[in-house]
Amino acid sequence: MTQKLFISNANQVVTMAGHSDKPAKKEAMSDITILEHGSIWIEDGKIVEVGTDAEMREKYQGQLDSVTEIDASGKTVTPGLIDPHTHLVHAGTRENEYAMRLKGKTYMEIMESGGGIHATTRATQAASYETLYEASKKRLDKFLLHGVTTVEAKSGYGLTLEHELKQLEVAEQLRQNHPIDIVSTFMGAHAVPLDEKRNPEAFVTRVVEEMIPEVAERKLATFNDVFCERGVFTPEQSKRVLEAGKQYGLTPKIHADEIEAYAGAELAAEVGAISADHLLKASDAGIKAMAEKEVVGVLLPGTAFFLMAEFAPARKMIDAGVAVALSTDQNPGSSPTISLPFIMNLGCLKMNMTPEEVLTATTINAAHAIGCAGEAGSLEAGKKADITIFDVPNYLTLSYQYGMNHVDTVIKSGKQLVVEGRLQ
Amino acid sequence: MTQKLFISNANQVVTMAGHSDKPAKKEAMSDITILEHGSIWIEDGKIVEVGTDAEMREKYQGQLDSVTEIDASGKTVTPGLIDPHTHLVHAGTRENEYAMRLKGKTYMEIMESGGGIHATTRATQAASYETLYEASKKRLDKFLLHGVTTVEAKSGYGLTLEHELKQLEVAEQLRQNHPIDIVSTFMGAHAVPLDEKRNPEAFVTRVVEEMIPEVAERKLATFNDVFCERGVFTPEQSKRVLEAGKQYGLTPKIHADEIEAYAGAELAAEVGAISADHLLKASDAGIKAMAEKEVVGVLLPGTAFFLMAEFAPARKMIDAGVAVALSTDQNPGSSPTISLPFIMNLGCLKMNMTPEEVLTATTINAAHAIGCAGEAGSLEAGKKADITIFDVPNYLTLSYQYGMNHVDTVIKSGKQLVVEGRLQ
Ligand SMILES: [Zn+2]
Ligand SMILES: [Zn+2]
Repeated sequence: MTQKLFISNANQVVTMAGHSDKPAKKEAMSDITILEHGSIWIEDGKIVEVGTDAEMREKYQGQLDSVTEIDASGKTVTPGLIDPHTHLVHAGTRENEYAMRLKGKTYMEIMESGGGIHATTRATQAASYETLYEASKKRLDKFLLHGVTTVEAKSGYGLTLEHELKQLEVAEQLRQNHPIDIVSTFMGAHAVPLDEKRNPEAFVTRVVEEMIPEVAERKLATFNDVFCERGVFTPEQSKRVLEAGKQYGLTPKIHADEIEAYAGAELAAEVGAISADHLLKASDAGIKAMAEKEVVGVLLPGTAFFLMAEFAPARKMIDAGVAVALSTDQNPGSSPTISLPFIMNLGCLKMNMTPEEVLTATTINAAHAIGCAGEAGSLEAGKKADITIFDVPNYLTLSYQYGMNHVDTVIKSGKQLVVEGRLQ
Repeated sequence: MTQKLFISNANQVVTMAGHSDKPAKKEAMSDITILEHGSIWIEDGKIVEVGTDAEMREKYQGQLDSVTEIDASGKTVTPGLIDPHTHLVHAGTRENEYAMRLKGKTYMEIMESGGGIHATTRATQAASYETLYEASKKRLDKFLLHGVTTVEAKSGYGLTLEHELKQLEVAEQLRQNHPIDIVSTFMGAHAVPLDEKRNPEAFVTRVVEEMIPEVAERKLATFNDVFCERGVFTPEQSKRVLEAGKQYGLTPKIHADEIEAYAGAELAAEVGAISADHLLKASDAGIKAMAEKEVVGVLLPGTAFFLMAEFAPARKMIDAGVAVALSTDQNPGSSPTISLPFIMNLGCLKMNMTPEEVLTATTINAAHAIGCAGEAGSLEAGKKADITIFDVPNYLTLSYQYGMNHVDTVIKSGKQLVVEGRLQ
């Protein structure tokens, strides 16, 4: 029997319609389409129709008795939020390093002394499959509570074939078992292991010749990512990794230009990456190249906030025609938050994006950054019924009443998973 | 019969003990006293004893069967948070102005064109007593959900005797009906009414001769506050207002040096204010005077965050010996948030305070800023059992996992009002 759901009479339904083919850029990022007193008809986990409550009640008159109705009066409905950049699967926390930083150490100093990524690598290597699974599942539940229905998840805390596969297999099992959609990225080239610091080329060769073929063979990832930054991987090494992935059908992504301009944005355009992420110091030439090649710029203002750094030049990128997305960068070192709604606040208050642009950046553009804009990221007929209802009268209030989680209800593929801010 | 409650085996109990007589300053702001595996025994709404779980189980052995136990394993327990500066009782929201600001208007421009305080004044004057009461009650419920058990509430959106009394009476009725403790501040001198802009002295005279005596007579406030800022009230006018309040037993508070150095901090010391608030531009002389006279500095980093302004020089103040407290400044124009936990994040990440200092600033020092350190703000025998339990393993994680509300349980005067993040 057909499962029907009717979300009725929302103060605002923000559909984000019309951007499924291409990421929204420039003025299109402000084109969010708002229905006042809007309703959504859902059947078998998919959106059938979005319209005004009056229209919909007339049209579906005969079926109103048999439908499950969610009264969204006074509330704001958006597509389920999409987080296109997380390091979901990991073990251990690093609040001790955070306390050190607040007393003056830099992130790079902590990393070079064996903390940072290496601390999480040790913990993740040591963790059992079950431990990793449970910790990651808990985080997914919190993502749901913050209105997120799709997340990208990267490996990269394993750094050996065995442990990279362990991370990716945990993500795969969660993809099957957890209602949130997970899109997997292989990131063997996240850091050079401490004991191979003197010979990074040999490690890159292992990533290229050993890990990528195996990950692709097992179909454990869609994307292939690399941390291109001075002291981590050079643009040349990064290119080698990304081109190797392409040979095996893995689409490139890149951690680019976070700490200094290092031609990462340029490389993203050159190799045809689907996204380049971070971009705090991206050069003008790199930004221009990204715009031309339609590489989505995934900005991570939470990381800048948490590391007390400058923020990425979002306005400059949008003005230059880069399609911008936003993400938590969820990870235990540089961005432990799970709140994408808070990242939206930072987009407005720290990067001068408008409330419309941050919504685009966490829905349809985030979907484009991970290749799922055909089925998610907007409220349009035929897409998955991935929907977040916020207990605020309009979308402006999401960032106006800042620093708070306004999620009331989350619907994933037509199922109510969060009701009144609580997991069902 | 005695009502008993036993909070048991918390990963950390942060007591903040030893600072009830005087606000904590300098190094004392880091002296927070942590019990690992800590427990708290509560009788008739008061704390009887705080100790390690092992000690307490032995001591209260005979009573463990009859007590209500709250298992705090793995969690962190702190005093109920205290918000010492809010404009709780008001009507209307101003997300439209927020959107204007994001497109380039300044707060002062919006205010001068009849927006800002004046927009909220119109809405508050127009609102019925019941409307104001219900809107404010909703906000108090949200404060509870964010771990807050005591708030200060200011009038100042009435600006006529009638409407100032209406605001204060709403606060007084909420004080009686709502479990949160409310401490009331009269702030008739919050703005010069638009139709009296040409003759502010006459308005000041009305505040002094008409409003203050009536408010004091009806016992509707403990404190008397004034917005001392160029274009609002001069230091001379502010002094007149604060001295008049003292004649009627109202202790001075002051909104000082927010937009420019205007000798507000100096005035606070001169009139013997219990606190001076904002202080973004306070002069060195003003800071020194505050330290000498033990005026608590109430910093409002959410307001700076939301207005995209510089932050108050918290480190400089702490180093100079000012006892610092933190607050949301909850109000519809410059700080619509209700999350004091998020304000703690800003204290760390935007004002370089340590996690210990921000806890002091939102518990015992906040209590001192509103004169209730004798009964709240720390977990010590004899104090009210106002307690917040966070679902994090240690207090560092409160700001490490930033931008999220980690409140699990809130206990007010021995009653569980929030359980698993939900109002009971
Ligand atoms: Zn990352
Ligand atoms: Zn204020």
